[in-house]
Amino acid sequence: MSRTVDSRTAGTLISSPDITPEELQLAVRNHSMPLEALHYPITPVGLHYLLIHFDIPVVDADTWELAIGGHVERPLRLSLDDIKSRPQVTIAVTLECAGNGRARLTPRPMSQPWLSEAVGTAEWTGTPLGPVLAEAGLSERAREVVFTGLDRGVQGGIDQLYERSLPPAEALRPEVMLVHAINGQPLPPQHGFPVRLIVPGWYGMAHVKWLRSITVTDSPFEGYQQARAYHNRVDDQGAGEPVTRMLPRALMAPPGVPDFMSRTRFVSPATYHIEGRAWSGLGTVTRVDFSDDGGRTWSEVELGAAVSPFAWRGWRHQWNAKPGEHELCVRATDSAGNVQPDAQAWNMEGVQNNAIQRVRVIANPVDEVQAPADEFRS
Amino acid sequence: MSRTVDSRTAGTLISSPDITPEELQLAVRNHSMPLEALHYPITPVGLHYLLIHFDIPVVDADTWELAIGGHVERPLRLSLDDIKSRPQVTIAVTLECAGNGRARLTPRPMSQPWLSEAVGTAEWTGTPLGPVLAEAGLSERAREVVFTGLDRGVQGGIDQLYERSLPPAEALRPEVMLVHAINGQPLPPQHGFPVRLIVPGWYGMAHVKWLRSITVTDSPFEGYQQARAYHNRVDDQGAGEPVTRMLPRALMAPPGVPDFMSRTRFVSPATYHIEGRAWSGLGTVTRVDFSDDGGRTWSEVELGAAVSPFAWRGWRHQWNAKPGEHELCVRATDSAGNVQPDAQAWNMEGVQNNAIQRVRVIANPVDEVQAPADEFRS
Repeated sequence: MSRTVDSRTAGTLISSPDITPEELQLAVRNHSMPLEALHYPITPVGLHYLLIHFDIPVVDADTWELAIGGHVERPLRLSLDDIKSRPQVTIAVTLECAGNGRARLTPRPMSQPWLSEAVGTAEWTGTPLGPVLAEAGLSERAREVVFTGLDRGVQGGIDQLYERSLPPAEALRPEVMLVHAINGQPLPPQHGFPVRLIVPGWYGMAHVKWLRSITVTDSPFEGYQQARAYHNRVDDQGAGEPVTRMLPRALMAPPGVPDFMSRTRFVSPATYHIEGRAWSGLGTVTRVDFSDDGGRTWSEVELGAAVSPFAWRGWRHQWNAKPGEHELCVRATDSAGNVQPDAQAWNMEGVQNNAIQRVRVIANPVDEVQAPADEFRS
Repeated sequence: MSRTVDSRTAGTLISSPDITPEELQLAVRNHSMPLEALHYPITPVGLHYLLIHFDIPVVDADTWELAIGGHVERPLRLSLDDIKSRPQVTIAVTLECAGNGRARLTPRPMSQPWLSEAVGTAEWTGTPLGPVLAEAGLSERAREVVFTGLDRGVQGGIDQLYERSLPPAEALRPEVMLVHAINGQPLPPQHGFPVRLIVPGWYGMAHVKWLRSITVTDSPFEGYQQARAYHNRVDDQGAGEPVTRMLPRALMAPPGVPDFMSRTRFVSPATYHIEGRAWSGLGTVTRVDFSDDGGRTWSEVELGAAVSPFAWRGWRHQWNAKPGEHELCVRATDSAGNVQPDAQAWNMEGVQNNAIQRVRVIANPVDEVQAPADEFRS
């Protein structure tokens, strides 16, 4: 590998709470879901979180093909029309970046500096992957199904196409899809046009965008994004546990109005319906608790229906904002018994940080809004 | 104003190149246009830059109305259907944030920390504003036309609805529009649903989103975003010059592939067609120059047609990447004689920074891409 990269690369640990210029370059490209978008059960396109490792490829849909091969009986090449001609399903799926919350860790692993809102829920339309693999015919020696994107770049010193794999049992789950549409529209470039993978329940790194090929291997897949990145490890000894499904998390849409720069929230003392959403890739969200004193005391909130079996669940809670300063917190529990922690167990990559959300709110008698220009206010 | 905000607020100057946690909060919400999106003459929704001062309002289009009043003869209230029933136009318009480039200044004014790509071009559909104002009938005493949004928050210590004004002569220009659609779709929440203002040629702060009212005043408008923010001033003495139209800028889509963290570009030594776009709110872009030696020597590039009279112009240039490290630069000149500077003249708010783009590229004999999993590569 003759290529040199900057000395402060992904994986470096940063002690300062301030963000390096390298992290800023990622933050201005990628974006999380503004918390007020929790009002929408289906996240509008453009508000859904995005993480793009390299560049967004420009793809000609007329010549694009998905190659399926490796240890299969009948290699396939599918055009976009082929994929649209197969049985179609639409499923609402919540996707969250495995690195969500990374920028709240100390020291902070240098990578995309997410706060708490690298998430979104979309209605994805496409065809189930299982029948496609069945048509190709997995070899008896099939060990992994590798998904390769058209996006190319250097990471960890390795020039690579973005690639991730799934064990056959996961790839064959009925909800795993090859999708070509989001919220009823063709995929926009940034979401993987023309076709991407959706693996409901898993963190975002599994949902390979701009699919180029699917390869069945008879040995473990050792690609960078699979074998090195996306592991939960606390030191350089050993590979750590691979990141797979989303841990539970609840988020609230913060009440009141924000200060532009600090994002501190202001409310008038009154009663508010706090709304939010909660999800888990490990089970159903069974309970969400709310605190207005930084997590010392908790109240169970009212849960709404899940948007789909693979999407977040709405919740609401009536909160009486007494004058003063408050720290609002929210905490999800899932049917597998997982509960969000108060603070995160640190790890080298800053993955799976599902510590509870904390929102600072100041409740004071509200001054009138600066008189707007329209003296004829209705 | 009884509200307290964090001590490090907008306007603070930061000497460190590192980004504060407060700036990061804005960077993860708002996003610029990834430079590879320069390949598209019309920016796909979701890739267009976004700056949202406060929260995105949730608006019910069925009950929404736009009130037009103040110093007019016939106050109006327009529903969304009323606006759609009026004569419709579609214009491609390039929008750029006035703070584009802010994070490259030293010291850095604390606000949204843009690098160089807070821009986008969309096809906006709506009705011209002039006939609406004519129907309302501007008073002879009309001095300003004030546009008030539904977005509310605290900035500069002032609780406010977002408001900006235009002189009547600007508001009555034929290209100024009340728009309800972007790229043929209803405005998504983040772009100002249901109706926003478009003021072709002006920086983004003029294009008020989530319009609530238009008020004609007989005195200068003193709102925060008009009288205090968006001024080019080098010290605290005097208000400075108000920011209006976009200075010229050219951007290139960087060639080759990026390193994930440093965004350094790698290419094989070969000849490349470098592509990009250039725009100015002060005239037509008449010339774009390219340099591969950090701006020591320049070559004029080939200009394409403008996408519209109010949108950017494509350009391309053949570049022979010799082995070694290069700093690629690009520089626009407009018909009013404005030329992008090599370095920015500093100002307190970090506005109008149109210094030339610089892209670091390493041209080395390329190693093969890490063998992808598909041994059957076509």
